[in-house]
Amino acid sequence: MKTLWQHCHVATMANGKYSIIEDAAMVTAGSLIEWVGPRSQAPTADYTQVHDLQGAWVTPGLIDCHTHTVFGGNRSGEFEQRLEGVSYAEIAAKGGGIASTVRATRAATEDELFLSAEKRLRSLLRDGVTTVEIKSGYGLDLANERKMLRVARRLGEALPVSVRATCLAAHALPPEYKDRADDYIEHICKEMLPALAAEGLVDAVDAFCEYLAFSPEQVERVFKVAQQLGLPVKLHAEQLSSLHGSSLAARYHALSADHLEFMTEEDAIAMAAAGTVAVLLPGAFYFLRETQLPPMDALRKHGVKIAIASDLNPGTSPALSVRLMLNMACTLFRMTPEEALAGATQHAATALGLGDTHGSLEVGKVADFVAWQIDRPADLAYWLGGELDKRVVRHGVDVTV
Amino acid sequence: MKTLWQHCHVATMANGKYSIIEDAAMVTAGSLIEWVGPRSQAPTADYTQVHDLQGAWVTPGLIDCHTHTVFGGNRSGEFEQRLEGVSYAEIAAKGGGIASTVRATRAATEDELFLSAEKRLRSLLRDGVTTVEIKSGYGLDLANERKMLRVARRLGEALPVSVRATCLAAHALPPEYKDRADDYIEHICKEMLPALAAEGLVDAVDAFCEYLAFSPEQVERVFKVAQQLGLPVKLHAEQLSSLHGSSLAARYHALSADHLEFMTEEDAIAMAAAGTVAVLLPGAFYFLRETQLPPMDALRKHGVKIAIASDLNPGTSPALSVRLMLNMACTLFRMTPEEALAGATQHAATALGLGDTHGSLEVGKVADFVAWQIDRPADLAYWLGGELDKRVVRHGVDVTV
Ligand SMILES: [Zn+2]
Ligand SMILES: [Zn+2]
Repeated sequence: MKTLWQHCHVATMANGKYSIIEDAAMVTAGSLIEWVGPRSQAPTADYTQVHDLQGAWVTPGLIDCHTHTVFGGNRSGEFEQRLEGVSYAEIAAKGGGIASTVRATRAATEDELFLSAEKRLRSLLRDGVTTVEIKSGYGLDLANERKMLRVARRLGEALPVSVRATCLAAHALPPEYKDRADDYIEHICKEMLPALAAEGLVDAVDAFCEYLAFSPEQVERVFKVAQQLGLPVKLHAEQLSSLHGSSLAARYHALSADHLEFMTEEDAIAMAAAGTVAVLLPGAFYFLRETQLPPMDALRKHGVKIAIASDLNPGTSPALSVRLMLNMACTLFRMTPEEALAGATQHAATALGLGDTHGSLEVGKVADFVAWQIDRPADLAYWLGGELDKRVVRHGVDVTV
Repeated sequence: MKTLWQHCHVATMANGKYSIIEDAAMVTAGSLIEWVGPRSQAPTADYTQVHDLQGAWVTPGLIDCHTHTVFGGNRSGEFEQRLEGVSYAEIAAKGGGIASTVRATRAATEDELFLSAEKRLRSLLRDGVTTVEIKSGYGLDLANERKMLRVARRLGEALPVSVRATCLAAHALPPEYKDRADDYIEHICKEMLPALAAEGLVDAVDAFCEYLAFSPEQVERVFKVAQQLGLPVKLHAEQLSSLHGSSLAARYHALSADHLEFMTEEDAIAMAAAGTVAVLLPGAFYFLRETQLPPMDALRKHGVKIAIASDLNPGTSPALSVRLMLNMACTLFRMTPEEALAGATQHAATALGLGDTHGSLEVGKVADFVAWQIDRPADLAYWLGGELDKRVVRHGVDVTV
């Protein structure tokens, strides 16, 4: 069962570079890439199928490595109130902010959560995403975190996308633990994580390290339990202040540290040494009108791998397109289109622990790719919104969304 | 031939407000709205068709009142070079910038221009646009401006969208008129505008008033000829500096003055008195990383109508979604979602001279509307990119794009 794909140019994204092959061909065998190179050198074989890609540019399928796709309700009402002049304090006093998403998520049935998340996920998929990470973190108790993670698993079964499920129980303090953060961390470590991991619902463990969330010490307790359970860790760090969560993440060989606007050069050195990926989230930076830029020069200087993700969530980044994030990474963070595309392919794969199997078009990797009708790869970061003509292939098979 | 549309909420956008009718119904007769109101009061009649809108929020079809949809090539290569550190001067020395788009547009056949523009226009339509303005301005001679305007007309015939064609011959100085701007203006006034108007290709006349384009005096010569030809005028004004082009536009009762970051309160007073709409273009503001905000307070204080448009163009706003522009109007210009939506419906219609027939869902107006599967109208400005589930109706008939 070998398939030949030809009449295309390929940006393989090997090693996080375009690594362009013009007038290329690709051979897939089942769900894997068996060969990729110049068309003139394509192996002759008895191909089951031969596809003409009509001059398209082929890239790896996009990987969105940081999302909160599953949630109840949305916060467009708060968005509107804020723009009409209502203060954060008033909104919070009325039970707004993340508390309202926790309430709506807890109140929703698993099927309701599935249906609303499915719509959002389809939007990401229509834009070329073939692998997505989905976090829990609006349930904040065992039953509701389980419900969210089950929805993440079901999404991966129902839609043509590979889903990695991350437990973010340490996202915010649930109301029933008001002023008892250490007790909640204890509950996560003793009850929630062991149970959810035993049920096979967790691919990685995440936490939110910030003065308005959890301290580095509390995060470390969670990380230690994750380590005991054999689960890789990730961390929301240095979004609003510098607690050196990214260095802490590096000490635990985290897959990634995410946000990072306030990280220091020392943090970058620690992350580079540990191979921890820097996941930048330009949608949240834009939506919150942040002004503190992530330290691009330090990240580049020390060779930290940089990924770009949507951070799709109702409060700070209601982003339904990874391509738009590429543009924002270029426009706002001054990344190059090549760096941005690497950030949503090879480096995003690494941020999910999938760097050896996904994220680039190389022999032996999974045949997840997109054939874009564009003039050059930079088009993926250039156009603002909308939809580009394309053909999406996952596990060697055409998918429609 | 009467059709009943029910089980929906309607934001009619009458008078530029949401003007919400919950649990509403709408009756269309042919291509027009015959009745709209609470469902309980819907007239009983022998309806040819009855449509269940399943709880959708209905808004007027979106109107993109400022685009340069027709052009040859694109400038993603320059976008990439700039981010890789190449200076504007180097790019200009290599023939980049608007000059490269003029060359590519002149080199393209009418069919080539049609096909590339059609793709972009379909992207806008998939996001709920039912009326669009398209400017010439990359031909800069009679034959090539004619070619662009003919493509605009053809797009309106081929796709389910109403197209208003604007002649923007005074967009930039063509190379063959180097250092002879007055001669080019003379050519526009004596040859181009009369010929293109006689061919029925022009619905309005636009110009670019800026120190790097044309002076107020030169613009005024173009406006006078437009007036003699019975054509309404528009103006690109105060984008990069304050030449009071918007006041000049108001003196000629222009439909709109567009961009406006550097306009003054006096300009706003003049525009309000003349009924000239302020068309804001947040995509260009974002893409160019501008910092000078349009004077929102002055515009509001004096009651200037504010429209929002994509400015879709290859150099400064490669925007393929009007919804994204609504978000940028809110996020960057601090408009409310209601103001932003009015800016892409009722006020955008007025900016095209269509305020009496389009832009709101009122009796006697054209039945162009979108039934969105959203929680509330603010959702249209809240989500970043992607696609929302919806049903688009134009001239009373379902359209698919
Ligand atoms: Zn997050
Ligand atoms: Zn323009």
